[in-house]
Amino acid sequence: MTPSWLSDPIAVPSVVCMAVAKARQEQLTKPRGSLGRLEEMAMLLAGLQDREYPAADRVGIAIFAADHGVAVAGISPYPQSVTVEMIRNFSRGGAAINVLARMLQARLEVVDVGALLDPGPLPGVVSKRAGAGTRDFRFAPAMTHEEWRSALQAGAEAAWRAAEEGCDLFIGGEMGIGNTTSAAALASALMRKAPELLAGPGAGLDPVGVARKVAVIEESLTRHRHVLNNPVEMLIALGGFEIVALVGAFIAAAQRRIPVLVDGFIASVAALYATRLRGDVRPWLLFAHESAEPGHRLVLDEMQAAPLLRLGMRLGEASGAAVAVPVLRLACALHREMATFAEAGISAG
Amino acid sequence: MTPSWLSDPIAVPSVVCMAVAKARQEQLTKPRGSLGRLEEMAMLLAGLQDREYPAADRVGIAIFAADHGVAVAGISPYPQSVTVEMIRNFSRGGAAINVLARMLQARLEVVDVGALLDPGPLPGVVSKRAGAGTRDFRFAPAMTHEEWRSALQAGAEAAWRAAEEGCDLFIGGEMGIGNTTSAAALASALMRKAPELLAGPGAGLDPVGVARKVAVIEESLTRHRHVLNNPVEMLIALGGFEIVALVGAFIAAAQRRIPVLVDGFIASVAALYATRLRGDVRPWLLFAHESAEPGHRLVLDEMQAAPLLRLGMRLGEASGAAVAVPVLRLACALHREMATFAEAGISAG
Repeated sequence: MTPSWLSDPIAVPSVVCMAVAKARQEQLTKPRGSLGRLEEMAMLLAGLQDREYPAADRVGIAIFAADHGVAVAGISPYPQSVTVEMIRNFSRGGAAINVLARMLQARLEVVDVGALLDPGPLPGVVSKRAGAGTRDFRFAPAMTHEEWRSALQAGAEAAWRAAEEGCDLFIGGEMGIGNTTSAAALASALMRKAPELLAGPGAGLDPVGVARKVAVIEESLTRHRHVLNNPVEMLIALGGFEIVALVGAFIAAAQRRIPVLVDGFIASVAALYATRLRGDVRPWLLFAHESAEPGHRLVLDEMQAAPLLRLGMRLGEASGAAVAVPVLRLACALHREMATFAEAGISAG
Repeated sequence: MTPSWLSDPIAVPSVVCMAVAKARQEQLTKPRGSLGRLEEMAMLLAGLQDREYPAADRVGIAIFAADHGVAVAGISPYPQSVTVEMIRNFSRGGAAINVLARMLQARLEVVDVGALLDPGPLPGVVSKRAGAGTRDFRFAPAMTHEEWRSALQAGAEAAWRAAEEGCDLFIGGEMGIGNTTSAAALASALMRKAPELLAGPGAGLDPVGVARKVAVIEESLTRHRHVLNNPVEMLIALGGFEIVALVGAFIAAAQRRIPVLVDGFIASVAALYATRLRGDVRPWLLFAHESAEPGHRLVLDEMQAAPLLRLGMRLGEASGAAVAVPVLRLACALHREMATFAEAGISAG
């Protein structure tokens, strides 16, 4: 039932490359440690990429889009039809991630893993539909085992395409009306924390809506309480196709030795889930930003993740991760191009 | 005595352009407010640049380098000779800011406003030496009125060159062994806060060194206590040539309607000083990052400044500001290029 690639090995970061990078950082013409997290990122990427000079030039971004049956419970200010409308917007290049990908000259693909309506063939959109949206998980598991397997595979294939293109970095994003509810339910189950700590306004719910969202999650956790100790069944019960795809993509990227730059709340819940399934995936996950969605902080803390940016973003679709790409590129350039004290003939080191 | 340009008018941001930008942001295909500070930056830049579509493409960076007589008091782990060695490193393109400016395709110039040793003519270095370093302000005012005027002028001229080149954004940076001591003394005097709150490790002092730095500042504030209520005399007593140049540059940039992206601790102290001299300069100052130097937070709070990044950087030479440039560029691109709900035919707005 479980796809065989899921147990493929994940490498550990190269201790040698990290040590070489650290030694180089200490010779560059600056007070030791004065580039802060940029030094840390250069060393970490060197270890992950197993290179003397790490790179973040070739970036592969995959946006997974899907619908959620639970959206009918009034947990989003937007109707489910917006998911497919946004798929069309991605295809035409008008969404935030399109603009960001163009600016970054990144590889962008959109994967329809199961919007309610099938948009049909669209440029730039890969159709890997696991189903026509999930079921409303208040009343039944969100998906079948076969749908779970399809969505997981769709995610892995996106990471494999990024690997074939020689990407230095993989970013997974999501679009799906209602998906903060699914993510908050999963996070609540994974962390054993109360839903009110993890449910937030998402795309813009008012306080009454947030209270409804909390109640929906509580009801759903109660319904599925008997499967919450089983990782696969938990995801099948409460997940969304795009969240499952993110899990598959993150694990597959790590298996192909591509560092993952994790976006906001939903991507981080997928990352947390992935680390529970495969603890060895954790070193491959870099955290781009802290979202304005209040539950994100708790999910980050659970993984002891220190995100690079905090810009009050809460859009999803990998937008926060994309904004962090230039920071990594500048970190790599500084590591590669700065003069050493010896080269510059400077008396202090 | 005071240069006449110092009282030239500074425009207020265009309320109309900000309102137009806000209206556009609300029509773009994303939940309202979901791009967080990127939306805020696009609106603010639109108002400052008096344009419908703001830009951060052409960036002018000026690094002011100078020495400090107080460096002999053992308040830096580096000898003063490093200042001129770093000027040579800038000229050869090996310093952090050279790498960053190349990556950003930014205009970079280095202005020698008074290193202890005159490096002579160097490519990429503008010689505007106000003196051969300042005097040790434990015993005398750091500079003369004439030196103050020279350094202020050197700063303004750098901003005027950026304006002539049509820069969308101005960044002022600094290099000068001992300059966190001068900046902490000024901040302490400006904010009437104890020196121990503002003196930090700078380029890497140990705790004993920091305690010495605090004592040096206390001694100097006592010596110059009778002039600390006079803004010009305070700066002459405790400043450095590069700090005075930054003050001149920030005011001159605002007068030419160029938004300023402020770097770390020292640049922020210059910014605070500039706002005390000319309150109308404040809207023109955007704050790039919160430095690892502990006093920076207090200086930012004093101006109610919310920096964009916090990456644990503490290098100076405009490096933190440079790292924030891509964030502004992406904010401008999103504002300009995203589709509106109407363009995308999306049902919710």
